Formats: sequence, structure tokens, C-alpha cells
Amino acid sequence: MSQEIEALQSALRQFAAAREWEQFHSPKNLAAALSVEAAELLEHFQWLSEEQSRNLPPDKREQVAEELADVLLYLLQIADKLGIDPLDAARRKMQRNAMKYPVELARGSMRKYTEL
Amino acid sequence: MSQEIEALQSALRQFAAAREWEQFHSPKNLAAALSVEAAELLEHFQWLSEEQSRNLPPDKREQVAEELADVLLYLLQIADKLGIDPLDAARRKMQRNAMKYPVELARGSMRKYTEL
Amino acid sequence: MSQEIEALQSALRQFAAAREWEQFHSPKNLAAALSVEAAELLEHFQWLSEEQSRNLPPDKREQVAEELADVLLYLLQIADKLGIDPLDAARRKMQRNAMKYPVELARGSMRKYTEL
Amino acid sequence: MSQEIEALQSALRQFAAAREWEQFHSPKNLAAALSVEAAELLEHFQWLSEEQSRNLPPDKREQVAEELADVLLYLLQIADKLGIDPLDAARRKMQRNAMKYPVELARGSMRKYTEL
Repeated sequence: MSQEIEALQSALRQFAAAREWEQFHSPKNLAAALSVEAAELLEHFQWLSEEQSRNLPPDKREQVAEELADVLLYLLQIADKLGIDPLDAARRKMQRNAMKYPVELARGSMRKYTEL
Repeated sequence: MSQEIEALQSALRQFAAAREWEQFHSPKNLAAALSVEAAELLEHFQWLSEEQSRNLPPDKREQVAEELADVLLYLLQIADKLGIDPLDAARRKMQRNAMKYPVELARGSMRKYTEL
Repeated sequence: MSQEIEALQSALRQFAAAREWEQFHSPKNLAAALSVEAAELLEHFQWLSEEQSRNLPPDKREQVAEELADVLLYLLQIADKLGIDPLDAARRKMQRNAMKYPVELARGSMRKYTEL
Repeated sequence: MSQEIEALQSALRQFAAAREWEQFHSPKNLAAALSVEAAELLEHFQWLSEEQSRNLPPDKREQVAEELADVLLYLLQIADKLGIDPLDAARRKMQRNAMKYPVELARGSMRKYTEL
């Protein structure tokens, strides 16, 4: 696994331990918290046009970066608790996606693989 | 930024380009997709006790790994589109969290920093 | 449909029209907004035990009522835009659920109907 | 409260009791389930343009109705458990929204009330 990610996970572990937060940090609660942060990310975009979302002003972009960070920090904590290597899981998922969405069938289509 | 993360982002860019999916991949749509995947992650835990969520059987753990991967893949694509370094944003957010949640005030408390 | 619900939908229509918000209120955007409000509802519960969530203090209960209201108001607007009767849809869904979860199979089980 | 809504809540209570599901139906778990259903609603719209979302084909519209129903059924169960009247809460929230978004300030603007 990436050293930088391991360093973040280690820092998160110490952060929670120092505050005695492990009691709250069940995978169930962390998954709820991750989805709350994902919604805060989405909130920044909900009334924007797609075009506007491609051209964020710098202050909005910085707020979005902070929400992405929140999502990532919870993701790393869940992965750490469950012994999952997130980059490895992502690479394996990309391979599955390549099978589910063959280029010839998926080109230019927004359909789910079950409907291709 | 981490080389492994850059490699994933590059692979995701090629995956979308080969399928002509950039037209659908506005940050707005990707943020919606990320939050849908976050809910699929949460769905695995919604009826479990916290204790059960700390002790997942292997097949459930593998399904959770796949949902974590989906969230991470969308997160990396949003970051890539907006020119955000996700690990750097995560490190900066941890520093802000350390200010918002001083150990003495936050110890053993589940309260939001605005209510400490 | 319920007169009270029609009255709410009519008031929501006037509220949006007076503010020239119809331009933002596509079903797509309203669905994103609903899911953001659902997350704000969940946020109140994310670090609570299940037991605590069954015994909310009055001020917390009032905050939860406000988030439920936000979810319901967006739900009524989406239904109105798409010509869906929400109570009728709910009754039909309950009938489908009764088929998917027969009492004998579902008793005491948290499993999804596909796994019963 | 609306008689139709009370009838739905009563039917939901019996449905859960017959399956011995009250043990899983803490407000916390129901709030997670509601947000999962809200995401399933959003999933139908995530790759559509706003224009497409305003003109759903009938089969898609029926699927959306079913997701709206799922959200509403969980909402009614949470309200029932916590002793909240959902229509009354919605009417009170509309009054607060009228104060937060005065017509003159909010006209044609997608800004949050804190930024008006």
C-alpha cells in the first residue's frame, strides 16, 4: 500500500485514540459519516448547471477540496478498521468495470451494464 | 502526489475517454454518483449492530471493499477534474480538525466542534 | 390524493414561482437536494447508539422534525413535477413489500428479500 | 394529521410487528435506510441532463415513483417512532423558509439564505 496513505491512516488512528473516539468509530457509524460528507460535497453542486460545475471559482473549489478530504478521511478509517487496502480494491474494481463495460457496447452510452 | 494515485487517475481518464463518457462526467454528476456509492456502502451496515459491523464475515467484507473502491474511484475522478490533490487536501483537513477538536475538549465526546 | 398534501404542493409551487426558482427545480436537482436533506437527517443520529436514537431529548427531536420536513417538502415537489401521487405510490409499494417479505420467511430476519 | 397518513403508519406498524422487525427499526437505522433510498432515487437521475429529467419515459417514471414511495415509507416510520406529525412539520418549515428567503432577495438566485 502507498506509504502516504499508511501515514494518513496512522495519524487518523492516533487522532481518534487521543480523543477516545474509538467507541464511536464502528464501521457502521463511519459509513454513515462518510455518506453525510458525500452529501455535503454534493450540496455544493446541487443547483449548479453541469457547465458551472466544470468551472468553479477558486473559493468554491477550495470548499469542494475540503469535502473531498472529509470523504477520503472516513474512507481511510473504514478501510483501516476492516483491513482493506483501498488502492488495491480500486485497482481490482477497475478490472471488473472493464469487463462489465466493454468499449464497443458502452461507447457514448450512460446505461448501466445490466442494460447494455 | 502519490504515484499510485496518479496511475489510477490516468487509468480512469483513459477508461472514460475510450467510452466517450467525458460528456457525462461533469463534477456535478460525479458528485451525485459518489454519493450514490456512499449509500451502497452504508446499505451493507444499515441493519447491523455496531458490534456486527466490527466483525464482518469475509464475503460481506469483500462486498464492502468493492463499495469503498467505487467511492474512491469517483473521488479520484472529481479531484482530477478540479485539479485537487486529494492526499494533500486530506492532510490539510487533519490539521484543521486538530484545531477544531482540541484533545481536552473533545475527549470522549461525540459533540460537533460548534457545540464543544 | 390527500387534500392536505395537495395544499402543500400548491403552496410549494407558488413559493418557487414567486422566487423564479423553477429554472433550478428540475427533478434531477430536486432529487439531489432531497438526498442532501436525508443526509442532514442522518447526521443527527450518526454517533448515537440505537438506544439513544429511540430516546431523543426534546430539542434534538425538534431538529429532527425540521429535517424530516425538508425531505418531505422535496419529495412532494418531485412528485408534483412528475405527476406522481405519493400516497398512492406508497400504498402500492407496501403491497409489493408484502409479497417480497412473506411473514414466515422474514420473521426476525434483517436479510434482503433476494437473500431470504 | 391526515387520515390517509395515519392509515399508512398504522399499516407499517403492523407490517413490522408481524415480522418482528421493531428490533431493527431504531430511528438511527431508519434514518440510514431513508438515506439509502434517497440515493436510489438519485441514481435514476445521475447521468441524465436536467432536461431529460423533466421528461421521463413512463417506465422510468414508474421506477422513480417506487423510490419516492420507499423514501416516504421510511419517513412515516421515523415520524411515527418519534411522535412527529410530518405534515405539520412541513407546514412549519415552509413558514420558516418564507422568512429565510424573502422574495425580493431570493428572486432568481440559487444562493443559500446565509449568503443572500
